Amino acid sequence: SHHRDIDHILERQSALAVDLGGTQLRVALIENHGDILVQTSNPTPKTNEERMSKLLEMLMNLAQKAISLNCRVLGVGISTGGRVDPRGGVVKHSTKALEGWSEVDLRTPISSMLHLPVWVDNDGNCAALGVRAFGCGKGVEDFVTIATGTGIGGGIVLGGRLIHGTDFCAAELGHTKVSLEGPPCQCGGTGCVEAYSSGLALQKEAQRLHEEGNLLTEGGHLENNEKITAKHLVEAARLGNQKAQDIMDRGAKAVASVVVNLLHILNPSRVVLCGVLAPAYIETVRNIVKKEALPSAAHAEIIASTLKEPALLGAASLVLEYATRRIY
Amino acid sequence: SHHRDIDHILERQSALAVDLGGTQLRVALIENHGDILVQTSNPTPKTNEERMSKLLEMLMNLAQKAISLNCRVLGVGISTGGRVDPRGGVVKHSTKALEGWSEVDLRTPISSMLHLPVWVDNDGNCAALGVRAFGCGKGVEDFVTIATGTGIGGGIVLGGRLIHGTDFCAAELGHTKVSLEGPPCQCGGTGCVEAYSSGLALQKEAQRLHEEGNLLTEGGHLENNEKITAKHLVEAARLGNQKAQDIMDRGAKAVASVVVNLLHILNPSRVVLCGVLAPAYIETVRNIVKKEALPSAAHAEIIASTLKEPALLGAASLVLEYATRRIY
Ligand SMILES: [Ca+2]
Ligand SMILES: [Ca+2]
Ligand SMILES: [Zn+2]
Ligand SMILES: [Zn+2]
Repeated sequence: SHHRDIDHILERQSALAVDLGGTQLRVALIENHGDILVQTSNPTPKTNEERMSKLLEMLMNLAQKAISLNCRVLGVGISTGGRVDPRGGVVKHSTKALEGWSEVDLRTPISSMLHLPVWVDNDGNCAALGVRAFGCGKGVEDFVTIATGTGIGGGIVLGGRLIHGTDFCAAELGHTKVSLEGPPCQCGGTGCVEAYSSGLALQKEAQRLHEEGNLLTEGGHLENNEKITAKHLVEAARLGNQKAQDIMDRGAKAVASVVVNLLHILNPSRVVLCGVLAPAYIETVRNIVKKEALPSAAHAEIIASTLKEPALLGAASLVLEYATRRIY
Repeated sequence: SHHRDIDHILERQSALAVDLGGTQLRVALIENHGDILVQTSNPTPKTNEERMSKLLEMLMNLAQKAISLNCRVLGVGISTGGRVDPRGGVVKHSTKALEGWSEVDLRTPISSMLHLPVWVDNDGNCAALGVRAFGCGKGVEDFVTIATGTGIGGGIVLGGRLIHGTDFCAAELGHTKVSLEGPPCQCGGTGCVEAYSSGLALQKEAQRLHEEGNLLTEGGHLENNEKITAKHLVEAARLGNQKAQDIMDRGAKAVASVVVNLLHILNPSRVVLCGVLAPAYIETVRNIVKKEALPSAAHAEIIASTLKEPALLGAASLVLEYATRRIY
C-alpha cells in the first residue's frame, strides 16, 4: 500500500551502496544529500559463493538498520572493478584481484532478496558519478575522472552521460600506455600508467627501497614488523628522500601523460583526479599540462577532488538520481 | 526559379571539396557517390591574403567547370589542419605549417562569392567522415580514424557523430604521448606519436641514415639530387635494411600504443588507419593489440583503409549528406 503519511514524508530517502574491491567489501547506507550514515566493511571472501553470501548478509543487516534510522531505502548501487554491463547488472569480466568473477549476475539475487532495484557499474565509472553528484563535477557535461587508489580506474562523462564503450571497456584509464617499453602490468600489457603510478606500484617500489636500506630517513620511523605501503614512500619523499622523490615524480609524470592524452583525445572541459594519491600528483600534472598540452586543450581545469568516497557515493547516486528523476 | 525540368533531374548532385594543407592547396569537384570528377592543386601560398585569394580563384574556376559537366554544386566542404569551429566555419588556430592562420573566417568570403553553403572541419575529422561516407566506416556508429600522412591526425565518431571537444581540440591523435621522455614534437610537447611515426619524422630519420651512408641497400637506387623522403625509408626497410626496419618498427609500435589507448579510453567497435603509411603499420599494430589490449577491448576491428582521399571525400560528404538528409 502506498499511502502518504507523516512518517513517509519525514523518512530520509537513501540508498544502499556497495564497493566490491579486491581486498575489502564495503556496504554503506547513504542519504539523499550524500551523507554516509552507516558504513560496514569486511575482507573480500576468496570464492564466488562466499563473496555473494557475505554481500547478501551485509546488505540485509544494513537494510534492517535503515528501518531503525527511519531511512527509506530506494535501491542498491554497486561499484566493482572490471568490465560491468550496467543494463544487465552483470560483472562481465573482473580484475586479477577478483579471480573467476566473470559473467556474475549481481542484480537478480540481490533484488529478489531485498525487493529493491539494483544498479551495478565499474568502480572508476562510479567515481565519476560520485564526483558529478556530490563533488566538483556537479553540472559539468564533459569531464574525465582518474581514480588513483590501489589500482588506477577512470570514468568519462560526455554530454552528461557515462561512456561505457561497445564492450563495457571504456575509461579503463589505468591501462593506457605511457611508455613504449615500460614495466609489465598486471593486465598483461606493458607501460601502463598503473605500473608506474598506482598504490600497488608505489608499494612495490617502497618495498624495494626498504630492502636496499634506502627508505628510512631521519624523522621517518617504522614499527619493526610494520607492513611497507605506498604511504611510506609518499612520507619519505616528503621528508626529502631523493630516491623516493624520483619514484613519485615518475608516477606523477605518467599520470600527466594520461591527462595530456585525454585532453588531446576528448578535449573535456575538466579532468578530476580523485583517490588517495591525487594530492601527491596534482601539481606535477598541472605543470606538465601547461608546458606540453596544445594551447586550446590546456584551458581544461585539472582538479584534485577532495571527495572522500567517490565510488561509493557514485554507486548511491545511481539509485538516488533514478528515484528523483529518471535519467539513467 | 526552382522548377523541375529534365536537365535538373539529370544533373549530377556534387560538391566542391577543399584540402587546405601546409604544402598543397587542393580543390576537387566530387559527385554524390564519391567519384572525384576533377582535381586541381597548387602550392599553398605563404601569406593569409594570397592563400585566401588563391582559394577563391580555384573555387571559382571549378564552379564554372562544374556547369560544363552538368554538375549541380550543392555547397563547399573544406578540410584543413588545426583547430576548426565547424559551426562558425572558422579556423581557430592552425598548425605550424600554416603560420598565422588563426581566427580565419573561411565561410563568409566563399559563400558570398559562390552563393553556396560552406562547411569547414579539421582534416583528421574530415578523414573520419570520408571513411564513414565512402569507406570502411559506413554504418559504424563508433569508430576512430588515425590519419598517417606528413603529420598524424585523427577523427572520432561516437553515436554516429563527430566528437569536436569543448575547444574544438578533440581527436588531435598525432599529439598523444606514447613515451615519458621521447623526441621533441613540433607542437612543443615531447613523446608525441607524430614525433615517431609521421611522414615528416620518417623523412628526418631517412635523411640521417643517408648522411651516415646507411640508407642505400643493393636494389635500392637514388638519383643523385633526389630529395630523401619517408618512401626511401619504407623502401629500404622492405629491402632488408635493418636500421630502416628498426625505425619503421618503432613508428608502428608508437601507433600501436595510441590504438591500445583509444581501445581502453573509448572502446570503439572499429579503429581505421588511413593515409599513405597505414599499410606499413597495420600488421604490427594488430599484433600488439592482440598481445597487450584488455580482452574485451581487443575485439575491435583494426583496419587499414584503402580510400585514396579520405579528407577530401569527407569534406565533400559534409555537403552531400546535408543536402540529402539534414544530419549535421
Ligand atoms: Ca572505468
Ligand atoms: Ca582531429
Ligand atoms: Zn595494464
Ligand atoms: Zn606533438
